[in-house]
Amino acid sequence: MRTTVDQSHSPSPHSLRNKLARVLWGIAYICLFRPTPKVMHRWRRLLLQLFGARIGRGSSIYPSVRIWAPWNLTVGSYSSMAHHVDCYCVDKITIGDHCTISQYSFLCTASHDYHLASQPLITSPIHIDDGVWVAADVFVGPGVRIGAQSVIGARSSVFNDVPAKVIAAGYPARPLKPRIFGNAPS
Amino acid sequence: MRTTVDQSHSPSPHSLRNKLARVLWGIAYICLFRPTPKVMHRWRRLLLQLFGARIGRGSSIYPSVRIWAPWNLTVGSYSSMAHHVDCYCVDKITIGDHCTISQYSFLCTASHDYHLASQPLITSPIHIDDGVWVAADVFVGPGVRIGAQSVIGARSSVFNDVPAKVIAAGYPARPLKPRIFGNAPS
Amino acid sequence: MRTTVDQSHSPSPHSLRNKLARVLWGIAYICLFRPTPKVMHRWRRLLLQLFGARIGRGSSIYPSVRIWAPWNLTVGSYSSMAHHVDCYCVDKITIGDHCTISQYSFLCTASHDYHLASQPLITSPIHIDDGVWVAADVFVGPGVRIGAQSVIGARSSVFNDVPAKVIAAGYPARPLKPRIFGNAPS
Repeated sequence: MRTTVDQSHSPSPHSLRNKLARVLWGIAYICLFRPTPKVMHRWRRLLLQLFGARIGRGSSIYPSVRIWAPWNLTVGSYSSMAHHVDCYCVDKITIGDHCTISQYSFLCTASHDYHLASQPLITSPIHIDDGVWVAADVFVGPGVRIGAQSVIGARSSVFNDVPAKVIAAGYPARPLKPRIFGNAPS
Repeated sequence: MRTTVDQSHSPSPHSLRNKLARVLWGIAYICLFRPTPKVMHRWRRLLLQLFGARIGRGSSIYPSVRIWAPWNLTVGSYSSMAHHVDCYCVDKITIGDHCTISQYSFLCTASHDYHLASQPLITSPIHIDDGVWVAADVFVGPGVRIGAQSVIGARSSVFNDVPAKVIAAGYPARPLKPRIFGNAPS
Repeated sequence: MRTTVDQSHSPSPHSLRNKLARVLWGIAYICLFRPTPKVMHRWRRLLLQLFGARIGRGSSIYPSVRIWAPWNLTVGSYSSMAHHVDCYCVDKITIGDHCTISQYSFLCTASHDYHLASQPLITSPIHIDDGVWVAADVFVGPGVRIGAQSVIGARSSVFNDVPAKVIAAGYPARPLKPRIFGNAPS
């Protein structure tokens, strides 16, 4: 008899293979990833790669970052995910080169279909292109693509695609102005 | 001589009995609730029930959920509270059947009366009716009632009552459209 | 060869002395600050003072508060920082007397200059004057001053200065009404 319902009123959509892999990753995370000093970026990259993540050289995944399924994560080179980022990669999350995901941000690939009473899980991938900065405590929802070199302001919630080379912010996040490189306005 | 002031400039409004009960619950939480594997929903329900919570069958309270005072918590059947939900039940929190409270959401029954310089604690109960989905990282403030089968969008902040069968979102959360069951619009 | 990049694409802007001091503080934090029972406010004040913080009598810094560099923190008397406040004092944070910083709030003194591709770290101090209440899960950005006796509503994001004696809220937080002491309106 089944008496518990995880995440939704539907039966779990995850395969036994997925569940077992996540149990193994959970143990590795608690024992070998989470308790490491911040400077051990190379070690955490290796551990994530062993669990199927693709992570380029020089990228920093901080020890308090949560990753649902490393095999759904691709990160380019010289990117970083700071303290307490939640990388909820039920679906694919792809992050380019030279990106910064600041502390407390939440990349969320999963939702529920609320048109049905059973609310089945629905997922959609997230793409963050090269040179993007997602500032602190930003929410990025399922299916979102953030174009290259854009900046998402702190505490924004991103539900729709963001074009390249803009500063976007708010709830929901909207482009506010172009991103122009050069000296800061005085 | 009293040199520390907890949550406000007023003397603590909590009775010695309340404080002792919370110390006991805090020890039980750290030793017996927090370190359990996710699947042990039945065990955590039992533990909460021992501390006075009323929780229906099939409901899932994840191990990282924070609960201020279990004796102020009522949850129906087949509901779930996901990772890192903060159930700050200084006053009563009542959740119906088939509800989902997604990760990082914060149900906050307490505030301070800022009309007085001493800012005394004020509390008001929260009611979440049957079939509600509170999506990720939502704030629900003191005194709020969310009507049956409504959905609160991710990252919203709810300061006022939400009627039944609506999709509500934003800061402050407002109803945006009715919730209609059937196929998703294409 | 340098293969990791911390927080930004620029070389770390922090001196070796700063880094060593933070390693020492990190060890003290994990061993002596974080695991203490809530009531041991006097002990945590002493510990912070040993690392250069100035904290007045009767102030309460909860054990789950994160403090980046205690030597950049000044707190007056009878103030409190509640559970899971993040005091990200890369630059100075100054909090007056009789202030309350509620749970999950994030005082953030650092940002990146996004006008340059290297995104160097930029910092600016935060000032919170006497008698201010920063409610739950509020973000206070770099360079912000909040005037005496003002209240910032729960879940607000403060990017600009807030004058004294107002209630402010929203994204971005704006003054909504004056703060008037006396009986609450019925």
